[in-house]
Amino acid sequence: MNENKKIIYLDYSATTPIDKEVLDEMQPYFSEFYGNPSSVSEFSKEVKMAIDVARGKVSEAINCKREEVFFTSGGTESDNWALIGTAIAKREKGNHIITSTIEHPAILNTCRYLEKLGFKITYAPVDKYGIVNLEYIKRAITTKTILVSVMFANNEIGSIEPIREIGEICKNNNIVFHTDAVQAIGHVPVDVEELKIDMLSMSAHKFYGPKGIGVLYIKKGIKIDNYLHGGEQERAKRAGTENTAAIVGLGKAIEKSNLDMPNENIRLIGLRDRFIQEVLKIKDTELNGDMNNRLPGNVNICFNGVEAETLLMALDLRGICASVGSACSAGSLEPSHVLMSLGLSEKKAKSSIRFSFGKWTTEEEINYTITMLKDIINNIKEG
Amino acid sequence: MNENKKIIYLDYSATTPIDKEVLDEMQPYFSEFYGNPSSVSEFSKEVKMAIDVARGKVSEAINCKREEVFFTSGGTESDNWALIGTAIAKREKGNHIITSTIEHPAILNTCRYLEKLGFKITYAPVDKYGIVNLEYIKRAITTKTILVSVMFANNEIGSIEPIREIGEICKNNNIVFHTDAVQAIGHVPVDVEELKIDMLSMSAHKFYGPKGIGVLYIKKGIKIDNYLHGGEQERAKRAGTENTAAIVGLGKAIEKSNLDMPNENIRLIGLRDRFIQEVLKIKDTELNGDMNNRLPGNVNICFNGVEAETLLMALDLRGICASVGSACSAGSLEPSHVLMSLGLSEKKAKSSIRFSFGKWTTEEEINYTITMLKDIINNIKEG
Repeated sequence: MNENKKIIYLDYSATTPIDKEVLDEMQPYFSEFYGNPSSVSEFSKEVKMAIDVARGKVSEAINCKREEVFFTSGGTESDNWALIGTAIAKREKGNHIITSTIEHPAILNTCRYLEKLGFKITYAPVDKYGIVNLEYIKRAITTKTILVSVMFANNEIGSIEPIREIGEICKNNNIVFHTDAVQAIGHVPVDVEELKIDMLSMSAHKFYGPKGIGVLYIKKGIKIDNYLHGGEQERAKRAGTENTAAIVGLGKAIEKSNLDMPNENIRLIGLRDRFIQEVLKIKDTELNGDMNNRLPGNVNICFNGVEAETLLMALDLRGICASVGSACSAGSLEPSHVLMSLGLSEKKAKSSIRFSFGKWTTEEEINYTITMLKDIINNIKEG
Repeated sequence: MNENKKIIYLDYSATTPIDKEVLDEMQPYFSEFYGNPSSVSEFSKEVKMAIDVARGKVSEAINCKREEVFFTSGGTESDNWALIGTAIAKREKGNHIITSTIEHPAILNTCRYLEKLGFKITYAPVDKYGIVNLEYIKRAITTKTILVSVMFANNEIGSIEPIREIGEICKNNNIVFHTDAVQAIGHVPVDVEELKIDMLSMSAHKFYGPKGIGVLYIKKGIKIDNYLHGGEQERAKRAGTENTAAIVGLGKAIEKSNLDMPNENIRLIGLRDRFIQEVLKIKDTELNGDMNNRLPGNVNICFNGVEAETLLMALDLRGICASVGSACSAGSLEPSHVLMSLGLSEKKAKSSIRFSFGKWTTEEEINYTITMLKDIINNIKEG
């Protein structure tokens, strides 16, 4: 897969390569079993069955019913659908939505759009570890509240939110609960039944599946408008020709990730914690987020007195690929809204870097990166 | 590609296999050049460049600027974005949209959704050949009209609409003109500049590219709201991680289709016309749509006295894959809204079948299909 690469890729949270086994399963659906799954002909049977198998794998992975799985074009569409679809469907009931300050732009910018359309959004704050304030959510609920959307795990600092508790609050108040689980699926166990999740977004390219495919899980009985209008695909809830190969890939990828998870997470947590330990030995460094309650592959470090952009470039020159946080706002000159929400100064936020590890990350790569980091920081500080 | 297939695929309008050359170009972007195009690292440069090349190929193919090309998840998203994005952006200016009665469900169902939100839609009728009534459109325009959306070519009967004339009308009235060109791109020449098109939808899997990828062309200066909100991708107009492999595939596919078009269309029109001629020799058959003004690969025949479903099944048993019309409403028991708009009786509409030819359709397949059709109809009528 990733063997003869020349770079050390530590940006798995931005995107992952497709696993070879996943890609192999996809291949026949490009040019061989290419029939339109919505056609009635015999030729499309194989294709329809493949989609059904993939749907089954998703439903098993998150413990929902098959008919609660809707394929979308990715996490962004799933998030837009969950929020706008609910807002429009329930606009007679209320116009209030609660979310958190550290959501992905796919949630935050959708919320801003809804504000433009007259909806009221409450942004619940988080503590210094990035954990959302449950009391704030409880107090924010009114009779007009139609939805709570809080991410499962944060994409920049890896904090895992108290999903079970939020699910409980929502259930007690009869409010729909959506979670953007784009960073969680395939990386930590997710059981929608147990956690009382009504809607959940995922994206295949975050767990070694293809780009351009995702899922919105919608619990049976949840009232939501369609978002892509047109043909009768996905039980008439999401129009557009089914992206067969990508759907097959997502199915295989979620199955494989869940199978690998127990061992892989032990390995990743080992790498992560050793990396954190070593990097924190560098003077003026701090860990952003929580030491324990974080995604197995996520590290986010503040290098005080060093500009993140400078550090990233220096790493890049040494063949190491990390990032300032969200790829979706890379290139932006603004400090990370997530880090600012933790209470970091703008300066600290702009001195922080995310390293995200995945299944082809090796101890050797980690060791090399640590050495390079020490070297670079030394040079910068002496220079 | 399609050589050792056991079926005769005459449903190219529903979807096409990916051309082998196209798929070959896509392959490196699944697991090798997998970096997130929005990352700033060196590793993502190759990916960013590939997307830029594909964008250039689209812009050349339809004669627009690169920065007017926005990649989407397919024709349905493009249509939804064009209509809803315009409606919301211009709701202060007006609430009236004009479309036609024979549009694809991605347009019609989006219009119905907009009606629910308070917009007024005028559905312009078509003549018996499926050509939209220009006078009707002209008369329907009011000061509240914000958009005209008429398809380039119809997916069921292949009629090519008077796009130049509609473009002219819209320009003279200062109204935005969108065309759903999903069936046209790659099959007939399309020049947005010359035809005065402001927005245009396309979908790669209709011209030998992958499923799950499309384009919305938006002329510079056109006011439209975003539809997928989130990251800063596509010049902050369409959020969601770029689907690199599929974008590369779309670029290659549109380039190749346009190159092949002149010769391929002569070949297809030859096959089409011979097929029509032969099938019309069967008693009680009629051609739906226009004899000349139609897509090179489209045939739609009414077999009076025979139920389309029965005929399709009989063809299917003989390894021939055709369809009742739109795959997006396959399985629906309703008669085709397109055929009903031409003035056909429900009975005639339910006795009509679409055969759509593509680049692997051979004369041999056509001959076999003609023989089988004669045989089946004979059996049914005698039976």
